[in-house]
Amino acid sequence: MHDEDGMGDSDPFERLGAAAAERAAAGLTRRLRPRPPQEAPDAVDLAGNDYLGFSRHPEVAEAAAAAARRWGAGATGSRLVTGDTLLHRELEEELADFSGAEAALVFSSGYTANLGVVTALADGSTALVCDRHNHASLIDAARLAKARGAQVLLFDHADSATAEAALAGSAREHRILLSDTVFSVDGDLTDIAALARACAEDGAALVVDDAHGLGVVGEGGAGALSAAGLRGAPGTAAAVTLSKALGAQGGAVLGPRPLIRHLVETARTFIFDTGLAPPAAGAALAALRLLRAEPERPRRLRSLARRISAELTSAGLAATAPDAAVVSVLADSREEAVAWAGACRAAGVDVGCFRPPSVPDGRSRLRLTVRADLTDAQVDRALETVVGTRPRGSG
Amino acid sequence: MHDEDGMGDSDPFERLGAAAAERAAAGLTRRLRPRPPQEAPDAVDLAGNDYLGFSRHPEVAEAAAAAARRWGAGATGSRLVTGDTLLHRELEEELADFSGAEAALVFSSGYTANLGVVTALADGSTALVCDRHNHASLIDAARLAKARGAQVLLFDHADSATAEAALAGSAREHRILLSDTVFSVDGDLTDIAALARACAEDGAALVVDDAHGLGVVGEGGAGALSAAGLRGAPGTAAAVTLSKALGAQGGAVLGPRPLIRHLVETARTFIFDTGLAPPAAGAALAALRLLRAEPERPRRLRSLARRISAELTSAGLAATAPDAAVVSVLADSREEAVAWAGACRAAGVDVGCFRPPSVPDGRSRLRLTVRADLTDAQVDRALETVVGTRPRGSG
Repeated sequence: MHDEDGMGDSDPFERLGAAAAERAAAGLTRRLRPRPPQEAPDAVDLAGNDYLGFSRHPEVAEAAAAAARRWGAGATGSRLVTGDTLLHRELEEELADFSGAEAALVFSSGYTANLGVVTALADGSTALVCDRHNHASLIDAARLAKARGAQVLLFDHADSATAEAALAGSAREHRILLSDTVFSVDGDLTDIAALARACAEDGAALVVDDAHGLGVVGEGGAGALSAAGLRGAPGTAAAVTLSKALGAQGGAVLGPRPLIRHLVETARTFIFDTGLAPPAAGAALAALRLLRAEPERPRRLRSLARRISAELTSAGLAATAPDAAVVSVLADSREEAVAWAGACRAAGVDVGCFRPPSVPDGRSRLRLTVRADLTDAQVDRALETVVGTRPRGSG
Repeated sequence: MHDEDGMGDSDPFERLGAAAAERAAAGLTRRLRPRPPQEAPDAVDLAGNDYLGFSRHPEVAEAAAAAARRWGAGATGSRLVTGDTLLHRELEEELADFSGAEAALVFSSGYTANLGVVTALADGSTALVCDRHNHASLIDAARLAKARGAQVLLFDHADSATAEAALAGSAREHRILLSDTVFSVDGDLTDIAALARACAEDGAALVVDDAHGLGVVGEGGAGALSAAGLRGAPGTAAAVTLSKALGAQGGAVLGPRPLIRHLVETARTFIFDTGLAPPAAGAALAALRLLRAEPERPRRLRSLARRISAELTSAGLAATAPDAAVVSVLADSREEAVAWAGACRAAGVDVGCFRPPSVPDGRSRLRLTVRADLTDAQVDRALETVVGTRPRGSG
């Protein structure tokens, strides 16, 4: 029996106020800050994940509009009931063809795609071998799988030797290695080829989260598996998002046909969730076709990211060398990171500010995401602002 | 160390083919079946959750189109980074005002809304007291919370006495009762007022999933908390979807301000997920405004559902008496349910077919969802078809 204090007319949500005050005292308050409809002429957005500028591309917006009129504003049900349309099929075929996978399955978000693929594959006979810095959605997926009896083993970030040891050390019949490709905080691309070798030697499956890789890395933006020479490789699958380089909303799993069929029939976040809304499916499909028609966009994007990183480093800042389109710049403290990001924003340059618990190593930083459609003037302005507003002593 | 058979060049996804064959042998194969863009003139859709017909409403589709043009096809980032817009704010204010909650927070799906609110509230100091028949997303939410140390206690479906006993029996400092309002398989509305009394006596919070209640039950469709006399009641919150009666995509949590602030700052599926796409937010807002302008729609919907249930029962079928807009009709076996649904579909009447493991009691059934915009001719045709195609001996 619980104590008497809980009884009667007290408000059970009241305690949340105290938790908020604690976060505020620790400098961890988070607030929503609505963005303007369009980037102001003299502003630069280096905070979003719209890497190729497709979210505001007129053809992508018109595809969303056309899909709403033709297929409806919503899917109206689970894909297995009334939520499936030829538009979803067309998008899945195009995603598979583009990435070199046998098949694809679209989910309502990247988060639910990761939860779906991992929990559909992992039960008591399975070990999940996970990079310590994996995205929150893969961590939650592993927690759910563990509740079903799966073993969860962590390996040191991007360390294929400890991954191999974890695979070899597991007594479970099936083993699945789970890793982000481009890690979202620092933008580093893990050595997928080395992880794939470890999996192949072990007989394990490799499932990667390519949310920040699709449309960014690999020839024409075909993604991290392609970039690692694993286009269509057996035993591998990728989860991707439609909400970053493709400018829309949703997620997808790309992989062998038996896996995709398995997900249709067993993935809880596929079966028990409303299908992706047609406007998002239409927008993602239009963006993917634009990307295929203009395959030089990802190359320009990566080159811009390298230029920004190099110039920040020359100016004495602790900037990461980007493998994809994310450049992170360390700050000395949470407070300093918040003040720095605020000063950039006040000067019209919107940058991300990542602090605990959203960072894997406890260190606060600015996070700059580069866009393929930035003008040279915008890049110059961004560099000048980030360097000019740096806190004393940073770098 | 695992056995030698796992080593080398075998395909780790190959085993999925055997699992598919087992499901097929058990009559549990699920296949995607794309729906047509528009309901054919002589067809009737009784399978989707587009209760008020808003998904294909021209004003709703135009709102999606306008949002794509003004705000972009995608949110471009987490709501806490660049994914927040004034459109999201407007939608949240309208949802809160409509439902009588202090505040609202929009997620990318109903699934992620449930995961977010439960995991943000439940830790090692918390007991979750759950209806056994809760939706898959609330079950997954409870599993995730358990991984963080929460206690999970189940009570018999819709039985407030066993719920009360479970609350009283928990030694945890905080207790949260979790229940669907309208249970999606049979469409029964649980006794929310009784659950709320149990919570109030115990000092527990009440969090309900009103996915099939918003827009359907309560005065003007204001939802199950309103219908139970709990409009804006302290200690209560509801998760809703924007993808059913509101015809779009997404989910939301409606509740007291301290709860909503807590979710903004701590809910993993809010912080680590791309914000809801503007076309979905715009569509949901337009649908909500149409609903408020035409508050008689939910009443017509419920009355149609009662008529359909009554006529099926008169014809000797085992149909549930609907509290909301779902009528379920029991079949004698999986195979019979599949054949019956197929015969309806062949005759132009699309009905849901729910089988294990998507049903809580192992019994297969047809699931008919009623729409406010069905014509009398469509209702007559639907009744004639469902009755005329019934398997011998059913009912």
